[in-house]
Amino acid sequence: MHIAIVGCGQLSRMMALAGIPIGLKFSFIADAEEDTRCVTGMGDIVRWQPGDSVVELYQSLGQPDVLTAEKEQLDASLLVAMQAHCETHPNAQAFSVCQDRHQEKQLLDRLEIPTSPYFYGQPKDLNETTVSLPVVVKSCRDGYDGKNQWVLKTQEDVDAFAQLDKKENFIVEKWIPFDKEISQVSVRAKNGEIKHYPIAENRHQQGILKESIAPAPEVSEQLTSSAQTYISRILEDLDYVGVMAVEYFVVGDKLLVNELAPRVHNSGHWTQSGSKTCQFENHLRAIAGLPLGATDSVGITGMVNLIGTEEIPYNALADNSKLHWYGKTVRPGRKLGHINIANDDVENLREQIKATQVLIG
Amino acid sequence: MHIAIVGCGQLSRMMALAGIPIGLKFSFIADAEEDTRCVTGMGDIVRWQPGDSVVELYQSLGQPDVLTAEKEQLDASLLVAMQAHCETHPNAQAFSVCQDRHQEKQLLDRLEIPTSPYFYGQPKDLNETTVSLPVVVKSCRDGYDGKNQWVLKTQEDVDAFAQLDKKENFIVEKWIPFDKEISQVSVRAKNGEIKHYPIAENRHQQGILKESIAPAPEVSEQLTSSAQTYISRILEDLDYVGVMAVEYFVVGDKLLVNELAPRVHNSGHWTQSGSKTCQFENHLRAIAGLPLGATDSVGITGMVNLIGTEEIPYNALADNSKLHWYGKTVRPGRKLGHINIANDDVENLREQIKATQVLIG
Repeated sequence: MHIAIVGCGQLSRMMALAGIPIGLKFSFIADAEEDTRCVTGMGDIVRWQPGDSVVELYQSLGQPDVLTAEKEQLDASLLVAMQAHCETHPNAQAFSVCQDRHQEKQLLDRLEIPTSPYFYGQPKDLNETTVSLPVVVKSCRDGYDGKNQWVLKTQEDVDAFAQLDKKENFIVEKWIPFDKEISQVSVRAKNGEIKHYPIAENRHQQGILKESIAPAPEVSEQLTSSAQTYISRILEDLDYVGVMAVEYFVVGDKLLVNELAPRVHNSGHWTQSGSKTCQFENHLRAIAGLPLGATDSVGITGMVNLIGTEEIPYNALADNSKLHWYGKTVRPGRKLGHINIANDDVENLREQIKATQVLIG
Repeated sequence: MHIAIVGCGQLSRMMALAGIPIGLKFSFIADAEEDTRCVTGMGDIVRWQPGDSVVELYQSLGQPDVLTAEKEQLDASLLVAMQAHCETHPNAQAFSVCQDRHQEKQLLDRLEIPTSPYFYGQPKDLNETTVSLPVVVKSCRDGYDGKNQWVLKTQEDVDAFAQLDKKENFIVEKWIPFDKEISQVSVRAKNGEIKHYPIAENRHQQGILKESIAPAPEVSEQLTSSAQTYISRILEDLDYVGVMAVEYFVVGDKLLVNELAPRVHNSGHWTQSGSKTCQFENHLRAIAGLPLGATDSVGITGMVNLIGTEEIPYNALADNSKLHWYGKTVRPGRKLGHINIANDDVENLREQIKATQVLIG
């Protein structure tokens, strides 16, 4: 079976590495300017941009059976046009919703899933009937890894933002002093079966994921149950096939959805060594119509992102750790790899994560 | 770091798939006629045969840092000549010993490691002072998967064999009615550190491995200790770097070495899902001078070889199983893939292995 993937980054690379052993063939769709080093050798790479022929794309890819994607920011018309030729999972609606924060919020509201209080508009329209400062202003599109987000704490910040003279509407969200950030990665098969991975606890810095621990320590059964209930509701509503991630804020004994990702997710990288079937393989099993693999964890795993690391950090490799290097062009602030650490003693694991952060500089 | 591998079969493929994530680059040396489909896309493939220039080979490969191999039947002069250009692990001596059953037996005798009684010569020279019938006659070279082996039960069999008029000397070995077959896969680092995987129980049919279970049920601590002591003695004597497998017959409370493999081994494929670091990654970590990964098992795993299976047997895939398909040209009797099954209930695992054998037909 032949899977075409939109995007040539590390998520596509890790999907291919997980799928080659199960006999799947891959091809990749690259933007005009996209760096394709990550997936070189793993299948044909075809450049495409909105306006180019989709029929020609389909032929150049080698007539894939299924189209999927490693990113939500893709041209929805591509998915719609490709539906005439092959299966597309997740479906176009899932991408439409997840690539637009306003649609995402509307979906959550409709499904009665709690999320931070917000309004759709301009920060200058803040008043007592909307939400109060501080707020996080988020572009509806192209927001990931903390990009296109602004924290406004004071009226001066709001006025300064107004000076930027941005015309579009934003999601203006109440800034939430959360207790912790967690994420739920789950997978839904074509037959509707859903499997949930254990929850990951995540730590971000300047909007970029720095590290995860899974199964998340000290997350109650009640929170786990809520996290799974909410994601199941979304998966079923969207008739979604494949892996989805939902990021939650934990505030006291409540969860608030931060955002959805219609794809394999950085906070699920721990599954490569910490669970019976990794998220990449399960996404492929789902979209290829194969039985889902078990999502049980195997001990406790920490994941540390390698951000801007110039050299492959072999010095940080230990007998209980696994390295994933993406082979990308090195740039400051860029995710270039990650290390998974297996350690069933959580305190000890936290120490090892800290030590690893020091070693990778 | 760049690793060149002699051979383009499934073992090279699985090494590359394990090594690409840790930032290693690969190239492959193919025989004149060798099928290279397994490793296509994973690195440059250079054809070479004895007599061809080794300097040119080294350049065409792209100046690898380390040379290794997926098979013992290789031209030893290649390794010796490559030593002038790069590291070679395991070393040439290890290959010399393991590719010749007579040298192998002599090594085991010297290291006082028990093996089946044997003599080196012609079956017609059998007498009371050598070994008694039945015997297994093995070519000193080119024997694997049961090839170039003959079981002689009666004097008539011996006479018939003599009629074949083979001039070479053989290892003529006492045929052993063993209780079971097990194997020990271990890895030795450049600094001398050795890590042992749990023992696998193996079942062969007509000389080809059909299935393994690891950790092997019902193997005493004393047998485990012997298996590890013997392989450590061999690894140290040969100053060996990388993964080695030793196949043992269990006879009562004793072990007899059946054979050595200076490479990753089919009976270690279970480590891909059943241990903290698979044998392929650990071989690469060893030869690249990286810290070895933990070899602990994660539950109990069964491995079923897919021999001559015409189609990818997705029908045999379950939520607790992982498929490895090699992408080779299908031929009857050929190893085309394997399935790893995770099941901590041994009896239940044995049932699932049986059911899988039926499904893959």
